[in-house]
Amino acid sequence: MPAMLNFPLIAPMFSIPIRIYYEDTDAGGVVYYANYLKFFERCRTEWARSLGCDQASLLRDEGIVFVVRSVMLDYLAPGRLDDLLVASLALEKIGRARIDLLQSVSRNDTPLVTGRVSIVTVRTTGEGEAARMSATPIPDSLRQKLETCP
Amino acid sequence: MPAMLNFPLIAPMFSIPIRIYYEDTDAGGVVYYANYLKFFERCRTEWARSLGCDQASLLRDEGIVFVVRSVMLDYLAPGRLDDLLVASLALEKIGRARIDLLQSVSRNDTPLVTGRVSIVTVRTTGEGEAARMSATPIPDSLRQKLETCP
Amino acid sequence: MPAMLNFPLIAPMFSIPIRIYYEDTDAGGVVYYANYLKFFERCRTEWARSLGCDQASLLRDEGIVFVVRSVMLDYLAPGRLDDLLVASLALEKIGRARIDLLQSVSRNDTPLVTGRVSIVTVRTTGEGEAARMSATPIPDSLRQKLETCP
Amino acid sequence: MPAMLNFPLIAPMFSIPIRIYYEDTDAGGVVYYANYLKFFERCRTEWARSLGCDQASLLRDEGIVFVVRSVMLDYLAPGRLDDLLVASLALEKIGRARIDLLQSVSRNDTPLVTGRVSIVTVRTTGEGEAARMSATPIPDSLRQKLETCP
Repeated sequence: MPAMLNFPLIAPMFSIPIRIYYEDTDAGGVVYYANYLKFFERCRTEWARSLGCDQASLLRDEGIVFVVRSVMLDYLAPGRLDDLLVASLALEKIGRARIDLLQSVSRNDTPLVTGRVSIVTVRTTGEGEAARMSATPIPDSLRQKLETCP
Repeated sequence: MPAMLNFPLIAPMFSIPIRIYYEDTDAGGVVYYANYLKFFERCRTEWARSLGCDQASLLRDEGIVFVVRSVMLDYLAPGRLDDLLVASLALEKIGRARIDLLQSVSRNDTPLVTGRVSIVTVRTTGEGEAARMSATPIPDSLRQKLETCP
Repeated sequence: MPAMLNFPLIAPMFSIPIRIYYEDTDAGGVVYYANYLKFFERCRTEWARSLGCDQASLLRDEGIVFVVRSVMLDYLAPGRLDDLLVASLALEKIGRARIDLLQSVSRNDTPLVTGRVSIVTVRTTGEGEAARMSATPIPDSLRQKLETCP
Repeated sequence: MPAMLNFPLIAPMFSIPIRIYYEDTDAGGVVYYANYLKFFERCRTEWARSLGCDQASLLRDEGIVFVVRSVMLDYLAPGRLDDLLVASLALEKIGRARIDLLQSVSRNDTPLVTGRVSIVTVRTTGEGEAARMSATPIPDSLRQKLETCP
């Protein structure tokens, strides 16, 4: 039996609204299951931005990208067209080159999808198709911001 | 630390080719992480079709849809533009109203993404926005096909 | 030579912000060309909502959906990761069962993509796979709202 | 009234099959309108590949990408879940740095969507966010292949 996520519902430390459009739904009349990973990433990006961490600058200036290493998702209830949902994120753990996050998408405080996402910081060298990626420690400037998170 | 998938590399029982187009990639130059769930679903759909189980008929005739209940994914290496990948699937376990699958996307036998996906069979009653879903046993006709899988 | 859109830059009557995330981009480092149609639809949906026209209610209560009949798009400059763009819309013409719109996506008042979109109102009868669609006049309640647009 | 495409149904010179999965559909029960541009691009990519023109190589070796300059689309009938469609392409005109294509997606020879797409060849200089694009003549090697198309 696959492991189910039963993490305690902690107070999320960062949230953004997610409006559901036709593009997000499928012929089953509900939000297509892969799209919650898009909502999760929008939330991570806005969270990083709120910490002063702009991913485009990080890539341009330091050659560093965040790469998702693993994902666990529980689908509890379906989202639907025109829903105004909330994507939330809480920092679970910071490692040397890795950040673990608890994420969810909810409607009126009822979680529709909960998940755990592990991110690693990766340095790209070379360019185009020849680019190579290797894990690299979280830059100190970013680590300091993360460690002062509530 | 999140649970990592370390299931033994068993012989996959069903595979389809997946060509990577621009639509599948992102500005990091690799396949966007949510899109592997699309490839997983294409593989499940073709597997069901190979068993004589057409999802559109199942919905129309019996009001039954397959709903993903949980997903675990490990991202091991990136896919890239123009890659010709292989999505594979192996049946792990059949329950009363639930099917557990091991899935992967590989390039030249090197797994890029591995995952475990739990599906439940759900009956929809009502229509449109008022539709309700409740778990329902796997139809006998489908169960017999599944149990004769290699 | 294909027809180019050279409509005069009229004052847009409705706009929404569009933030560009990884999901919107491709391996060329720019916004994937099909995704502008998603941004166009988000803008149409929010415009309809601002007129008190909720598409989910319209479908549920009157069995009416808006269907895109034709699209013309000019791609003038690329959008990029992290861009904060603006999607705008101006009503060009209202017919019996048809609405013509001028739409654009811009960055700092520089249009990246401009387009013309024709929508028809369609009534669905039957359900599921057996559903049929036929053009139907724009409901009076919606027409009155459209005609009072600035 | 927007220009409608009424190009004569010429014998398409290149076609690929397109299977419709849940990912392609929306809550209206049909293929989401933006996704036909994905099918169009898959067809262009396979057509280019059939001419010995691999886009990844073209980008890596010559710094050249194909960029869509304009699109016209007519939506004639909806595609649905599990449909096996055909995406077709005919070369309309070759210019100095531009290729005009007629494209369609059909079911059993009935066109669902027809379109005209103009592509320009563009050279990228610089890298990452600082990349610049400028129109560049179609490479001779590619032009020769195009001109021998039936």
